[in-house]
Amino acid sequence: MDSSLYRFVLPMEVRDYEIDYQGIVNNANYLHYLEHTRHEFCKEAGISFSKLHIDGIDPVVARAELEYLSPLKMGESFISCLNIERKGPKFLFFQDIYKTDGTPVIKAIITVACIEKGRLTRGEVLATAFNLT
Amino acid sequence: MDSSLYRFVLPMEVRDYEIDYQGIVNNANYLHYLEHTRHEFCKEAGISFSKLHIDGIDPVVARAELEYLSPLKMGESFISCLNIERKGPKFLFFQDIYKTDGTPVIKAIITVACIEKGRLTRGEVLATAFNLT
Amino acid sequence: MDSSLYRFVLPMEVRDYEIDYQGIVNNANYLHYLEHTRHEFCKEAGISFSKLHIDGIDPVVARAELEYLSPLKMGESFISCLNIERKGPKFLFFQDIYKTDGTPVIKAIITVACIEKGRLTRGEVLATAFNLT
Amino acid sequence: MDSSLYRFVLPMEVRDYEIDYQGIVNNANYLHYLEHTRHEFCKEAGISFSKLHIDGIDPVVARAELEYLSPLKMGESFISCLNIERKGPKFLFFQDIYKTDGTPVIKAIITVACIEKGRLTRGEVLATAFNLT
Repeated sequence: MDSSLYRFVLPMEVRDYEIDYQGIVNNANYLHYLEHTRHEFCKEAGISFSKLHIDGIDPVVARAELEYLSPLKMGESFISCLNIERKGPKFLFFQDIYKTDGTPVIKAIITVACIEKGRLTRGEVLATAFNLT
Repeated sequence: MDSSLYRFVLPMEVRDYEIDYQGIVNNANYLHYLEHTRHEFCKEAGISFSKLHIDGIDPVVARAELEYLSPLKMGESFISCLNIERKGPKFLFFQDIYKTDGTPVIKAIITVACIEKGRLTRGEVLATAFNLT
Repeated sequence: MDSSLYRFVLPMEVRDYEIDYQGIVNNANYLHYLEHTRHEFCKEAGISFSKLHIDGIDPVVARAELEYLSPLKMGESFISCLNIERKGPKFLFFQDIYKTDGTPVIKAIITVACIEKGRLTRGEVLATAFNLT
Repeated sequence: MDSSLYRFVLPMEVRDYEIDYQGIVNNANYLHYLEHTRHEFCKEAGISFSKLHIDGIDPVVARAELEYLSPLKMGESFISCLNIERKGPKFLFFQDIYKTDGTPVIKAIITVACIEKGRLTRGEVLATAFNLT
């Protein structure tokens, strides 16, 4: 796992309540990890989701493709990595999670659209913050 | 929305705690809805996940493709629909959610693999229960 | 378990994703069950939480006392029961959960306060709907 | 907020997916914060919950008393503080959460019992690790 290949990298760790009856992180929780990573990336880029929301702009997930490669278990730490591309009015987040020993956990592409008062926008606020104009 | 096109249909409703700050169901919760639907389908087919787990067999999500079409909001009801196909050692669940007025909410393909003591199996137990042998 | 002792009764069932690594419903999920029960009770009483929220009124949990008596497990069904009392500006929800065989699961007292634009109100809207004036 | 009054202190931050439609952290999520804090405290004391579980020992929440003092909002950081006392066969966790500016968020007493193969034990494993024998 080469962190220089990514634009943003967030170390995280599994919390025990995220483990399900199979002894692994429940499949839905990875979407939480990925969302949290995107939001931390945005925070670093100077974007406040609460401010966006007050301004009537809501980035929403339009599409998610997730490949589950190796499950996270109790007590494990992981690195959540992110790249971003702009594609028309949408943003593609390429998000990979690795265990700290480098084992790939999940490979995801999350497509985000920017909704403003119920309508799809070109997401200029995000594009500027991400230097993707 | 034509429920005769699906093998299994489950009416559900949004619970208020599933709504996030944007006033819509958080993207991760749809994976909960879809998992719950699969498990209810399995229960109807005579499969007990807890019994499988005790026997060392764990169906796990290997891949998820989710297209978010229209967000669910507070107080809304929906229909969670399911079809299934076998593809090699894996099971493909075609899962669509519609609002009760027919508006498509999500279109998903969830690939499930059967793990037995840490190894991928051909999932014969599931295949038999689903009449997919 | 005598349902005539309660003002509102809601049959529910455990969803598999609510089970944690110990094979029982995680302690936090009971607060979800209890909240969902209160909201369904309110819906029946003609109260819409989303409308209240738009009107600037937000009922919030001020206090919770939970006695965990017997854990819910995979595949179990349960009955979520509710009584309500008014106490000054607050509402006390006496909420008990039983397995369908009558085994007590949880005994809770949830105190709810009504916040309007950041300030505690006397909750007249709720009191009227609940016939507790 | 004087951290020297506590035996264990964990800095955490709100994740956006924990916020509900009211714009505040949903009441159930505080139980997640408190559980995560107890488990981190235990980890520091050399206790592995996954090892305990494999050994057939499961600490479970027997009682929870939560006073919600001031809600956490989007983007806020907080300090989760813990003290512990032994009371017969049970452990009492006194858990307080404060915003980083010192505002009290929640005041909780969580009673934990140690179950071994379905029966209440005196929790000697935990007591030894916590120096509470």
